[in-house]
Amino acid sequence: MTPHRVYWKDTNMEPAIPFSGINRRALLSTLAVLPALSAPFLSVSAPAQTTASSGALPSWNDGPAKQAILDFVRVTTDPASPKLVSPEERIATFDQDGTLWVEHPMYTFMTYALERVPALAKAKPGLKEVEPFKTVLSGDREAMAKFTTHDLEEILGAALTGMTVDEFKAEVQTWLTTAKHPRWNRPYTELAYQPMLEVLQYLRANGYKTYIVTGGGQDFARMGSEKVYGIPPEQVVGTASATKYSYDKDGRPILTKEPKLTLFDDFGGKPEGIHMMIGRRPYAAFGNSTGDQQMLEYTGAGDGARLMMLVLHDDAQREYAYGPAQGLPDTKIGTFTQALYDEAKKDGWTVISMKNDWKRIFAFE
Amino acid sequence: MTPHRVYWKDTNMEPAIPFSGINRRALLSTLAVLPALSAPFLSVSAPAQTTASSGALPSWNDGPAKQAILDFVRVTTDPASPKLVSPEERIATFDQDGTLWVEHPMYTFMTYALERVPALAKAKPGLKEVEPFKTVLSGDREAMAKFTTHDLEEILGAALTGMTVDEFKAEVQTWLTTAKHPRWNRPYTELAYQPMLEVLQYLRANGYKTYIVTGGGQDFARMGSEKVYGIPPEQVVGTASATKYSYDKDGRPILTKEPKLTLFDDFGGKPEGIHMMIGRRPYAAFGNSTGDQQMLEYTGAGDGARLMMLVLHDDAQREYAYGPAQGLPDTKIGTFTQALYDEAKKDGWTVISMKNDWKRIFAFE
Repeated sequence: MTPHRVYWKDTNMEPAIPFSGINRRALLSTLAVLPALSAPFLSVSAPAQTTASSGALPSWNDGPAKQAILDFVRVTTDPASPKLVSPEERIATFDQDGTLWVEHPMYTFMTYALERVPALAKAKPGLKEVEPFKTVLSGDREAMAKFTTHDLEEILGAALTGMTVDEFKAEVQTWLTTAKHPRWNRPYTELAYQPMLEVLQYLRANGYKTYIVTGGGQDFARMGSEKVYGIPPEQVVGTASATKYSYDKDGRPILTKEPKLTLFDDFGGKPEGIHMMIGRRPYAAFGNSTGDQQMLEYTGAGDGARLMMLVLHDDAQREYAYGPAQGLPDTKIGTFTQALYDEAKKDGWTVISMKNDWKRIFAFE
Repeated sequence: MTPHRVYWKDTNMEPAIPFSGINRRALLSTLAVLPALSAPFLSVSAPAQTTASSGALPSWNDGPAKQAILDFVRVTTDPASPKLVSPEERIATFDQDGTLWVEHPMYTFMTYALERVPALAKAKPGLKEVEPFKTVLSGDREAMAKFTTHDLEEILGAALTGMTVDEFKAEVQTWLTTAKHPRWNRPYTELAYQPMLEVLQYLRANGYKTYIVTGGGQDFARMGSEKVYGIPPEQVVGTASATKYSYDKDGRPILTKEPKLTLFDDFGGKPEGIHMMIGRRPYAAFGNSTGDQQMLEYTGAGDGARLMMLVLHDDAQREYAYGPAQGLPDTKIGTFTQALYDEAKKDGWTVISMKNDWKRIFAFE
């Protein structure tokens, strides 16, 4: 058994789900639309800047979703409100993939892992002869479509662990400035949803501390968070592997990313991660899939005014359309099931229709 | 094998050290000076208020330690300084036991665990007949002095896990307002070091985010942190057990504290915990023992101006005197070894003499 083998399995939390609710079939069926894995683009675009809003939520159409946000902020920050929340308690948590930025055709951290394989093989030539790396390097999409969960874990383990924290940061930083999304041909960092950037800004302007709470890799998500969302690394909670403190050959301290999972931050792991990293119950929580269900339940179980919102991807023209709750295809990535929709209705969560509630999706539109 | 058995052992980080560098002998030899375990005091004192300083560090005598703090803040915050640190990078980390408050005769979280035993036995009468709880309840100090490491782990596991997060918070809150330190007969929350409260305030006034990084239990340390130190729970990093998300009989979400260690936050675990919870290298770090060595090394390995300080307990009259580096007794709690002293000298860390550098120790003096 290799160390990578246990990377996403060494947890007592969600043993049946290897990583972030990824469905193997769905993941593999999307491999075909990825750009050539070993060819980073030469042109470098600047990441999207979060523009200052001239009013609250300018990219939102008037309607129940926008109103829910405005009402929540008013009742929790107006000093005369019986539901006033003290400033230190103002915590808002956001899922990342599918809630703050595009998650199709594949979670960005998985795309990163696949596109790292050529560099990994260059550094460690033996990998070229070992599966599943051999197949990734061959570019044979048909063979890649047959990858097992274990194959995908091997790739994630190799791309996300085994190096020092500083090396990993440098690798991700380079990738974020060169890799591009196959549909928009833009850096992934430009594919943040402009209306959600406005929600983040609006909440912060009203004293809320905003957190990312992602099923994706914590160190990966931290890299772009400050520039894209204005969220510092210490306010990013994600699936995390252990690090190991030691010394390099010159006696300097280093932290090495180990193939051992310490936090599986999806499903029930989201409130668990929130308790571990924040220690307070959020007053507002935003998600878009079954992986966010427990975070929204946990938020809603608190006293006073709470805001729970789910982004529904119902805009095939401007972004993507998926979610069986609305009769849209179940892509397994960002699953918005009928059960989740029913719970949202029952518990007073607000569903955001990308098609109807958002004037525009991206800052570059 | 009971779940408690593995509570402090289920980590790959420091298998030889059960919890926070506790030495069994030292811990047990101090049991004799504890107040009766099952008799909480009736009078309730308010926790110490952190008073606003009229100048920087008023409880510090002039000298190299005070000067090191003033110099560090000046060169990292003066806009004209070549060593200016951008505001978002200003992170300062503080060990708690022996650095921010008294750690003798026993770490406060261990005292808490022992004093919880009567209530645990009341809730679960079977415990009365089971060791080591039977011996704790008997009050037989001689028998308690023979406790094995496993016995102590059983007690910590029973006191710190098995309940919901909300139940644990309520239990600790009650204890903090009723329990008193045997020497000063005051709540533990009043035994924070006034000079260190001033350092926290001074750093925050200069844009630093202050963190506790403790080998003690994270959830325990979070309870008093805001009131005593002005540090919110999300800025407390400590040894942490997993929680488990589930639903109570009424279907409400609950988080239960599990007997499974997710972060051993001492020795090399301190920089590991800092990476996990903060994701940035600190610019300043404060400690008092070998458990803080790696945190200070990691801090010092960064670029630019960094501040590393160690509190030396050399004041038997006003507090305690221990630390073999100065020919003082090695109490095993807060061990300041000769090797640590030598490393401090070699690497330019500043040693704080409680006796010479501090005008007063506590706010109540």
